[in-house]
Amino acid sequence: MSKTAIFYHAGCPVCVAAEDAVAAAIDRVKYKVEVVHLGEHKTRVAEAEASGVKSVPALVLDGVPFHINFGAPLDALK
Amino acid sequence: MSKTAIFYHAGCPVCVAAEDAVAAAIDRVKYKVEVVHLGEHKTRVAEAEASGVKSVPALVLDGVPFHINFGAPLDALK
Repeated sequence: MSKTAIFYHAGCPVCVAAEDAVAAAIDRVKYKVEVVHLGEHKTRVAEAEASGVKSVPALVLDGVPFHINFGAPLDALK
Repeated sequence: MSKTAIFYHAGCPVCVAAEDAVAAAIDRVKYKVEVVHLGEHKTRVAEAEASGVKSVPALVLDGVPFHINFGAPLDALK
């Protein structure tokens, strides 16, 4: 079974750059990749926060959060 | 031809976690991945800096730097 990768973003320029490069570079054989726009899906902010996400863009690999550069704090999306 | 991915780190716990997850998740069909320990290869700090790397761990995808969480500032490795 492939592992889970969730890329959280908010449509900001830093987010788009990270999505186009980092999220796109993930091996789709190893990971099922989901891209979540937290500005459009505010109900999922709590889920991101529970995974340890503090800012976007962030990539959560099998439950472990990795913040990629800095676009916006999660608090700004609540 | 595959693109170039360089993962710069310094052996710190944050670096190791990012290497094990993010660097390992990169699609090897799309990218030729190189892992560089800047503490052991100080001559490459200038190269990382020229790519825009400010801290480690960082992943440079086709010349574009993405800082992953925060382990140590590049200045600490000079």
